[in-house]
Amino acid sequence: MRTARYTGEHTVETATIAPVPPKAGEVQIAVAYTGLCGTDLHIVHGNMDARVSRPLTFGHEMSGTIAATGDGVTGWSEGDRVTVMPLIWDGTCPACLAGNSHICQNLVFVGIDSPGSLQELWTVPAELLVRLPAGLGLEQAALAEPVAVAVHDVRRSELTADDKVVVIGGGPIGVLIATVARHFGAEVAVIEPEVGRRSQIAALGFLTIDPREIDQVQWVETWTGGAGADVVFEVSGAAAAVAGATALAKVRGTLVVVAIHPTPREIDLQRVFWRELRLLGARVYQRGDFETAVELLAQGTIPTEALISTVVPLEGISEAITDLENGRALKVLVSVGGER
Amino acid sequence: MRTARYTGEHTVETATIAPVPPKAGEVQIAVAYTGLCGTDLHIVHGNMDARVSRPLTFGHEMSGTIAATGDGVTGWSEGDRVTVMPLIWDGTCPACLAGNSHICQNLVFVGIDSPGSLQELWTVPAELLVRLPAGLGLEQAALAEPVAVAVHDVRRSELTADDKVVVIGGGPIGVLIATVARHFGAEVAVIEPEVGRRSQIAALGFLTIDPREIDQVQWVETWTGGAGADVVFEVSGAAAAVAGATALAKVRGTLVVVAIHPTPREIDLQRVFWRELRLLGARVYQRGDFETAVELLAQGTIPTEALISTVVPLEGISEAITDLENGRALKVLVSVGGER
Repeated sequence: MRTARYTGEHTVETATIAPVPPKAGEVQIAVAYTGLCGTDLHIVHGNMDARVSRPLTFGHEMSGTIAATGDGVTGWSEGDRVTVMPLIWDGTCPACLAGNSHICQNLVFVGIDSPGSLQELWTVPAELLVRLPAGLGLEQAALAEPVAVAVHDVRRSELTADDKVVVIGGGPIGVLIATVARHFGAEVAVIEPEVGRRSQIAALGFLTIDPREIDQVQWVETWTGGAGADVVFEVSGAAAAVAGATALAKVRGTLVVVAIHPTPREIDLQRVFWRELRLLGARVYQRGDFETAVELLAQGTIPTEALISTVVPLEGISEAITDLENGRALKVLVSVGGER
Repeated sequence: MRTARYTGEHTVETATIAPVPPKAGEVQIAVAYTGLCGTDLHIVHGNMDARVSRPLTFGHEMSGTIAATGDGVTGWSEGDRVTVMPLIWDGTCPACLAGNSHICQNLVFVGIDSPGSLQELWTVPAELLVRLPAGLGLEQAALAEPVAVAVHDVRRSELTADDKVVVIGGGPIGVLIATVARHFGAEVAVIEPEVGRRSQIAALGFLTIDPREIDQVQWVETWTGGAGADVVFEVSGAAAAVAGATALAKVRGTLVVVAIHPTPREIDLQRVFWRELRLLGARVYQRGDFETAVELLAQGTIPTEALISTVVPLEGISEAITDLENGRALKVLVSVGGER
């Protein structure tokens, strides 16, 4: 079967490898689509070389159908349409014992720490499966993982209906957070410097702010009647965004750190103190987030047409990565086996 | 009557001024004791010159007895023993309307933004009064304000019994937070580099860590069975403490920012994200915190003997400030009128 894998030194190759047969408790999935995300770019850029083994078949946003089931797998049959929640926890660390298994202290992230879905037949533990409803297309379903991230981030923020929410950064996760926050009843403004993204986001019905043209603190002050935003999501990963984010939040407002910040960032702790702000880290998702994500996709709440820039064959992956790097694409799906 | 006041340029003078008679709704208090705190040092050092008018009679930690009541004041009589919660809010800003009047967007902090208690007769709105129980001495009662800060910080952390708590910084507020946290059922370790303070804190029954001798991350790991601390209080104000604090907290642990950080600080947001940490600002106190503080003082829960280094007359204030600056004193009380 065919796979795409990271071999080190900024290189992705396609290759033919033998499929892994499912052991007891495992299923083998005929992968339809795999989405590429920022973490995949980090892998290909070599930023995660200390963590990942090479060659690594990466990919963790996917959809497919079950091709085979291992011994002892119940409730799943060949042909079932599925996505995968790509987390394996140990169940024994302090975080797991405290009920936070999604961020287990020894978490295995499938597709980073073990082989991912950029292969025609992918074998995973059956517990990772999430069922897809009949009406949901496999292309759309490949967005379940990033939608689950957004659902988790929004739930973590504890926002409530009519809250005024600012999303800093209008990439795929930013747009998904904005979408989920609006679905949960919030009014949302997205801060995004890139004009093309900004007009796309405006077309989805969100307020948008160009941080290079508008005094965003003043804008939010006016928008919120002098209060400040109830919730701010930091999705940009930019140091300047972090430095400015605290100025946007109301007294006792919440700032959710969604983006990856590889080096320490300066934060205005005087503002955190003065307004009794709450800053929350939010990482991956819990089972309920994933199930909600699939529901939202099935309901048509998620603007998948606007998000999916292109669908490429497995052999087109290097070019697609270049497009993502250059901001020419929002979300790229790789058709691994397509709609078989 | 006598007062001590900041006149600018690092100078505190004692002077004779006319007392302010109480208007309707106000009371005039014969001040017994006024405690000096870090904020008072900031005032005297000129760090708050942009905010304070000069000459400023400062002081906001106090005890006394009512000397006179203005028209319309009910429930209070001459001779009542009181302390003052030194906050005046506008009741109309978004923060007040959302129930956070203690951090009103236009808060007047009495003793900073208006005259404070370093004067023999101090006139304040009657709503600021908090009654002192019969058994509580006026020296001890002068600690009500900093104890209320500690109660607020501990409540804000939402710590529960048997939590393992790290307090970074063993000054007066650090010791009070440790004391209140222990009273609420937590096990507490205090990180403090200064050997004299550390032995004093150990004598109060707390675990202590010398950050210059011990790998504090490893120590906390071992202490918590590999989990990390449930709650970390940053009370030091040091940049290095902030940088290291995130490494001490467990998955979904809480970091409370208590200290003043006048410039932005670097924070390990990767750790905040990775462990889904919660960082909370905590400022001043609410009415219930103040009432709890007075109760804790009356019960003898607060180690006032260890905390009050010295009691000086009004004329000794400049020398006392030097002692505080040099770390020779933990808490200094100024006997304004003493036990009349």
